[in-house]
Amino acid sequence: MKTLRTFIPAFILLFVIAPLLLAQGNNRSEINIPNLPGYVTLKCDFHIHTVFSDGNVWPTVRVEEAWRDGLDAIALTDHIEYQPHSKDVPTNFNRPYELAKPLGDKLDIIVIKGSEVTRKMPPGHLNAIFLKDADKLKTDDWRDALKAAKEQGAFIFWNHPNWKAHQKDGIARWYDEHSYLLENGLLNGIEVLNGYTFSPNAQNWCLEYNLAFMGDSDVHDPIRMEYNYMGKQRRPITLVFAKEKTEAAIKEALFAGRTAVIFNDTLIGKKEYLLPIFNASIKYNKNDIVLKKKDSFSLQVTNQSDLTYILSAKNITEEINCTHNVTLLPSSTSIIEISTGKESQSGRYTLVYQISNFWTASGEHSEITLPIHIEVE
Amino acid sequence: MKTLRTFIPAFILLFVIAPLLLAQGNNRSEINIPNLPGYVTLKCDFHIHTVFSDGNVWPTVRVEEAWRDGLDAIALTDHIEYQPHSKDVPTNFNRPYELAKPLGDKLDIIVIKGSEVTRKMPPGHLNAIFLKDADKLKTDDWRDALKAAKEQGAFIFWNHPNWKAHQKDGIARWYDEHSYLLENGLLNGIEVLNGYTFSPNAQNWCLEYNLAFMGDSDVHDPIRMEYNYMGKQRRPITLVFAKEKTEAAIKEALFAGRTAVIFNDTLIGKKEYLLPIFNASIKYNKNDIVLKKKDSFSLQVTNQSDLTYILSAKNITEEINCTHNVTLLPSSTSIIEISTGKESQSGRYTLVYQISNFWTASGEHSEITLPIHIEVE
Amino acid sequence: MKTLRTFIPAFILLFVIAPLLLAQGNNRSEINIPNLPGYVTLKCDFHIHTVFSDGNVWPTVRVEEAWRDGLDAIALTDHIEYQPHSKDVPTNFNRPYELAKPLGDKLDIIVIKGSEVTRKMPPGHLNAIFLKDADKLKTDDWRDALKAAKEQGAFIFWNHPNWKAHQKDGIARWYDEHSYLLENGLLNGIEVLNGYTFSPNAQNWCLEYNLAFMGDSDVHDPIRMEYNYMGKQRRPITLVFAKEKTEAAIKEALFAGRTAVIFNDTLIGKKEYLLPIFNASIKYNKNDIVLKKKDSFSLQVTNQSDLTYILSAKNITEEINCTHNVTLLPSSTSIIEISTGKESQSGRYTLVYQISNFWTASGEHSEITLPIHIEVE
Amino acid sequence: MKTLRTFIPAFILLFVIAPLLLAQGNNRSEINIPNLPGYVTLKCDFHIHTVFSDGNVWPTVRVEEAWRDGLDAIALTDHIEYQPHSKDVPTNFNRPYELAKPLGDKLDIIVIKGSEVTRKMPPGHLNAIFLKDADKLKTDDWRDALKAAKEQGAFIFWNHPNWKAHQKDGIARWYDEHSYLLENGLLNGIEVLNGYTFSPNAQNWCLEYNLAFMGDSDVHDPIRMEYNYMGKQRRPITLVFAKEKTEAAIKEALFAGRTAVIFNDTLIGKKEYLLPIFNASIKYNKNDIVLKKKDSFSLQVTNQSDLTYILSAKNITEEINCTHNVTLLPSSTSIIEISTGKESQSGRYTLVYQISNFWTASGEHSEITLPIHIEVE
Repeated sequence: MKTLRTFIPAFILLFVIAPLLLAQGNNRSEINIPNLPGYVTLKCDFHIHTVFSDGNVWPTVRVEEAWRDGLDAIALTDHIEYQPHSKDVPTNFNRPYELAKPLGDKLDIIVIKGSEVTRKMPPGHLNAIFLKDADKLKTDDWRDALKAAKEQGAFIFWNHPNWKAHQKDGIARWYDEHSYLLENGLLNGIEVLNGYTFSPNAQNWCLEYNLAFMGDSDVHDPIRMEYNYMGKQRRPITLVFAKEKTEAAIKEALFAGRTAVIFNDTLIGKKEYLLPIFNASIKYNKNDIVLKKKDSFSLQVTNQSDLTYILSAKNITEEINCTHNVTLLPSSTSIIEISTGKESQSGRYTLVYQISNFWTASGEHSEITLPIHIEVE
Repeated sequence: MKTLRTFIPAFILLFVIAPLLLAQGNNRSEINIPNLPGYVTLKCDFHIHTVFSDGNVWPTVRVEEAWRDGLDAIALTDHIEYQPHSKDVPTNFNRPYELAKPLGDKLDIIVIKGSEVTRKMPPGHLNAIFLKDADKLKTDDWRDALKAAKEQGAFIFWNHPNWKAHQKDGIARWYDEHSYLLENGLLNGIEVLNGYTFSPNAQNWCLEYNLAFMGDSDVHDPIRMEYNYMGKQRRPITLVFAKEKTEAAIKEALFAGRTAVIFNDTLIGKKEYLLPIFNASIKYNKNDIVLKKKDSFSLQVTNQSDLTYILSAKNITEEINCTHNVTLLPSSTSIIEISTGKESQSGRYTLVYQISNFWTASGEHSEITLPIHIEVE
Repeated sequence: MKTLRTFIPAFILLFVIAPLLLAQGNNRSEINIPNLPGYVTLKCDFHIHTVFSDGNVWPTVRVEEAWRDGLDAIALTDHIEYQPHSKDVPTNFNRPYELAKPLGDKLDIIVIKGSEVTRKMPPGHLNAIFLKDADKLKTDDWRDALKAAKEQGAFIFWNHPNWKAHQKDGIARWYDEHSYLLENGLLNGIEVLNGYTFSPNAQNWCLEYNLAFMGDSDVHDPIRMEYNYMGKQRRPITLVFAKEKTEAAIKEALFAGRTAVIFNDTLIGKKEYLLPIFNASIKYNKNDIVLKKKDSFSLQVTNQSDLTYILSAKNITEEINCTHNVTLLPSSTSIIEISTGKESQSGRYTLVYQISNFWTASGEHSEITLPIHIEVE
Repeated sequence: MKTLRTFIPAFILLFVIAPLLLAQGNNRSEINIPNLPGYVTLKCDFHIHTVFSDGNVWPTVRVEEAWRDGLDAIALTDHIEYQPHSKDVPTNFNRPYELAKPLGDKLDIIVIKGSEVTRKMPPGHLNAIFLKDADKLKTDDWRDALKAAKEQGAFIFWNHPNWKAHQKDGIARWYDEHSYLLENGLLNGIEVLNGYTFSPNAQNWCLEYNLAFMGDSDVHDPIRMEYNYMGKQRRPITLVFAKEKTEAAIKEALFAGRTAVIFNDTLIGKKEYLLPIFNASIKYNKNDIVLKKKDSFSLQVTNQSDLTYILSAKNITEEINCTHNVTLLPSSTSIIEISTGKESQSGRYTLVYQISNFWTASGEHSEITLPIHIEVE
C-alpha cells in the first residue's frame, strides 16, 4: 500500500478531527511536577491585576486563566495607590476578590485576597496577601499600610526589586527601608522573578534572610497576550510545597519559606527542594552498570515529569567517558552513552552531572550525583 | 560528521534563540489574502464585547488583539439592554469607543462605534455600526432603536439568527418582524456565521435579499480564550472588499454587499468574490500540457496565500485521469498527477476541480476550471 | 512592570533556549497508555519495509524511528516476491533483521523477524512474523510459503484486505482461499487498519473468527515522511497486552488475540480491552454528587493518559441535564456540567456517556457508564 | 452567544478538518526569500549521503525531501573511500545520481552529481560536484582525485574544516596542503557551516581568498531525524544567487562566489548579498516622520519574507529614543517606538540598527541604516 495520494474515504475523517472539536480551549492543561515527601506541590501566581486597578480584564477571567494554565491558587493584587480606570470603575479594593471567589469555588481554584502597596523606591512596591479588608491599606504612610496588612495576618513580599522604573540599570538595591521592613516582620518574601526578569540580588537576599522565593506573572493584559509561545509558554509560577491544597496550608508554607520558582525551563530555589523534584521525575533503565575495558553502555534516562532538565557532565575522565550534555525533555527518554577505554582501571565510579537549569544560588548551579554506579572489571 | 550527540559550542546558540526573544507576542501576524481587482481586501470583525456590557476585557484590549490578529477594522458592539456589570461599571454606551479609538489611531486599526440592540426573538439581536451617538438606541420599542440608528447612517445586521437561546433547534427562522426590517431599510446584512456556528438559512436570505454576508467572533472573553488551537486558530473574519482602507470605504462596501466570510479554512460568500481570490493565490509550473497516450505529467500547483484550498476532481474520465483530491496548504506547493491511458483520444481537455471549502450557496460548492489545457497527441 | 517591549538582559536567555539545545530530536517521546490488570501495554508496529524490498531506508533506521516514536517492538517485513532494488541490493530475506537486531538490543527495542508473502488477491498479502528462516518462504505456491512459516511457529496475518490495488472499491472481500487459511491455522490476525485506511469488514471478521486486531504503518519511506502533522502525528500502532516486555510474551499475546489498534485519536478493539484503558486513564474530582432541585455541579474529569477520549451523553433527561459533548485531551481536565431542574424527582441517577472514538464493532461505539452517581434530594 | 460548551453540529466539522486531510505531508513548503536584483535566490544543499556510502536512505528519498523542504537543487556526495554498506550495496559511485535524477526531473529539483573525497586531515574531506564520472576520483593520492575532478570541470570545496574527528578542539586549521589546493585551483569554497557547527576561521578564509561560502546538511539519516524542531526546523541551506534556475547557472554562481548560508535564523555571508535581501523583505508604514519635542510615533515594520531579522539599536541618544531590540518575525509586523524628549534639538536624524543575526565577518554584525528620517521641528 505504497501510495497515499489517493482518495480518503469519509469514515476515516474521525481519525483526525477528534482533538479539534473541543480544542477551542475549554480545558485545563495539567502540569505534572512531582510532590515532595510529605507535601503537595501547588502551582501558584501571587501577583495579578484586573480592571480594578491598571489591569485590563475582569476578575473572573483571572480564575478561568488560572484553571486553564493548570494552577492551584492565585492572589488578585490590584494597586492601592494607582487607580487609572477610576473614572469608569470606581475604586473598591475588596471587589476583585468578591467577584472572582465564586468562580474559584466552582473550578477548585484557591483565590486569595491581596493588594499591591505601590510606593516609590524605597521601599517600592509590596504585595500583601491573605488580607481580610484591603481598604485598611489605604494610608498616607507606607509603614502604616504594611502594619495594617500584618495585623490581618498578611504575608508581605517585595515586588520586582530590579524594576527599571525604579532602578535604571535593572539592578536591585537594598535600602534602610528594607532593613526596617525585615526587622519589623513586614517582609516575608521577595520576587526573585517578575515577568521576564530575574534578580540575582533578590535570590541572595532570600537565602541570607531566609525569605520565601517568589516568582509571579504580574499580568495586566490577558495572560496569553503576555505569555505565549506557540500556545505553550507558561507564566512564571511560584511552587508552594504545602501540607495540603488549602488556603491555610499555602499560607503556612509561605511563612515557612517552602517555595521555588519556575519559569519556562528554569527552576530557582533551594537545593533541598529542587533535588527531590528531579529525583522523583527520573527513571533509569539500569541501576548497576558493569563494564569491561573498551566497553560501552547506553543508559536510558526517562523524565516522567513536565519539566525539562539540562544536564552537563562534571567528571569526565580518561577512565570513564560519558555524554557531555543531555537535555531531558518532558515525558521523554534520552540516552547517556557511557564508555571505558583500554587504559581504564578496575574500580567503582559514580557519574556526576550538573543540572544547568536549576539556579540554586547566584552564579551557581546544582550539582547532582546520578545514582549510577559503574563497575569496571 | 555523523554524530550530533556531542558538545554544542556556546556560539551556536544564536542559531536557535532568535525567534524566541520577542516571541512573547508583541507582533502582528499578517494574513496574506489577495486583493480583488480595484479593491483592497480588509479583514474585519464587527461584533465584539467589552466590560461595558457582558464582555470581560477593557476596550483597548480589543484593539491590541485585532492588531496582533492581522485585522484592519473592528466594531465594538456592547449590548444596549444587557448591562450585567453596571454595579461596577456604570452604563455608558459611547465609552468603549472613546477608550479604544486612540490606540486604534496609533496602531492603524479602524475602530467603529457600534451597539447591539438586544431583544427577544423576534426580531432577536441586531448590531448597528457606524453610530454617532449610541445613547439614542436606548428606547422602549426596538423599532425606534433601529430607526434611531438608521438616522445616524448606521449599517444594521441581524446577529446569530440560529442562536440556540432563541431557536432551540439551532435553525434560523424568518418572522414578519424581519420583513418589516427589510422593507424599512433596517436590515442590511445577516451573520451567516457567528462564533463556531453557521446558518445555511442566513446564507440563503443574504443571496435572496441581496444582504451583506457577515461573519463575526462575538467575543466576550480574551480572544485567545475563545479562539485558539495551537496558538494559530483564527477568529471568524468578515472580508470587506473596499476601495481603500478607510472607515468610509468600509461603510460603502458593506452597503454594497461586497463581503465574504472566512473561518479557519472555510470561505462563505458569492462566487464572484471567492473565485478571484483563488485565482490570485495560485501559480502553476506549466500552463500548456501536451501528453502522448499512456503518458503522465506532475503539475505543481503553488498556493501563495495564507488560505487553504481543498480541491476535488469533477471530470475524471477514461481519457484523462488526475489526482482526485488535493489540498493546497498556505505557502505550499502540491502536485496534481495527470495521466492518459492507451485508449485516450487525441484532442483538448480541460481539468475541472471543485473547491470544497468555498461555500457559495446552501449545499453547493464552487466549481472552478483550472486554466490547464491538456493536448493528447 | 507593565511594558515588556524593553531590553532583555543576556542572563535571561536561559529561560527559553533550554528545550532547543537537544531538540534536534535525539530523544524518545514516551506514550503514556495505562496497563491492563496483569498485563503491560506494549506499543508495536508489525508491518515495516526497508531497502531490502521496496522500502527506502536502511534497516537500522527503523529501530531508531521506533525508539523515538515510543514503541516497544517492531517487525521488519520485507516482500518475498517483490524485490525492486535487487539490481543494487541483492536479495537476502534474513538480512534486514540481522542488520537491525544489534541496534534493537542497544535501544531496548524488540526486533522481530518477518516477511510479507506478496501474492495477488486472493489471498493477497500476508505477513508472517517470528520467523526463524525467511528464505523458506520463497516458494511457488503461496500455501507452501505460509505452511513453511507456520512450521517455524510464525504468527500470520492478512494485510490491508481493503487495498485499492486489490479491490477497486476499497472494500475487503472474503474468498475461499481465506477460509482455507483459517481452517489450516494459517490466519491468526487481520489488519483492520493499514496506513490511513480502516476496514469495517476486517473488524467484523476479527470478531467473528476470534482473530487478532492488527493496525500497522506499512511504512516504506522515512516514517516522518508518511506520518507527520505538526511533528506530532503518530503512526498506526498495535497495542499488545502482554505478560511482560519480551518477544515470547508478545507472541503469546498475539495468538491469544490480546490486541487493540490505535491511530491518532481512534482506538479499535474489543470492549473488554478498551474500557479498562479508559478507566485507568481517568480521575474525577468528586465521586458522589448530591444535588437539590434547580442545582448544578461542575464535575472535573482529568485524563492522565496521552490518549484523547471523545464523550457524548446518552441519557440526558428532563431530570438531569449534563454537558452533551466532552473531549478529554491528554494530560488535561475537562468539565461536565450537571444540573437539575425544578421538576427533577428525588432519586439516584447514573450518567451514561458514549466514547465516540472507541470503535468496538462495525458502526457501533462503546458505551461506558461513568461511576458518577447523582442523588437528588 | 456566550457559551461554546454546547453541541457542535456535524456540518461545522468542515471548518477544522480541511488542513489535515492532506497534512500527511505530500506538499512542498515554499521558503519565501527575496531575489537579488538580476538574480534568482536558489536554495541548495550540496552535501548529502545515501545508502551508497554511509547514509541510510535510498537516493530518491533525498529528492523527495528536498522538494518538501522547498529546495531548488541538491548534490548527492557519497564517500569515495568509505563504503560501510558495501557488503550489501556494492560500490557504484555514479549510481546514486542515476537513481535520483529521474525523480528530480519530475519534481523540478536539480540533482547534481558529486562525491566526497574522504582523507585524513590534512587535507581532510572535500566535495567535488558537477562531476561527469565519479569513478575517476578513486585514486591513491588525493591530489590525483581532485585533479580528476577538476578535469571534469568540478567545483571543489573543503568540508567541515572544524570537525572534531579531525580537530579535537573543534577549531579549523589551515595546512600547507590547503595552500597547495588553493594555488592549483582545487579549492573553490569552504563549508563555514556544516550541520549544527559554524567555523569562524572558515568564514575568514572565504573572505580572504574569495571562496564561496558553503553551508550544508551533511545528512546521513532521514532529514527530519537530523533536523527537526516542532516539525519546522530547516536544514542548513546554501543560498545561490544565480542568473536562472539551471544547473549551469548554479555552477557559474558558485565559481563567482555568489552565495550565502542560512541556518534557522542566522544568515552568514557578504554584506553585499545580505543587505539587499533585508531591504527587499521589509516595508514601513511611514517613511518620513516629523516629530515635535516630547513627541512619539509607533513605526510599523512589516517583514514580508520567511526569514527572521533581529535588530538592535546602535545610536540611541538623548535626542531620539527608540525601541532597543526588535525581532521581525516572518510575515509579521513589529513596532519601533520613536520618541523625542523636551531637550531634543531640531534637525534631521537617521535611525541605525544592527541586524544581529547577519554574520558578515568573524565577530562582526552587519549594520544597516533604516531609511527612516526623523525631523524634529
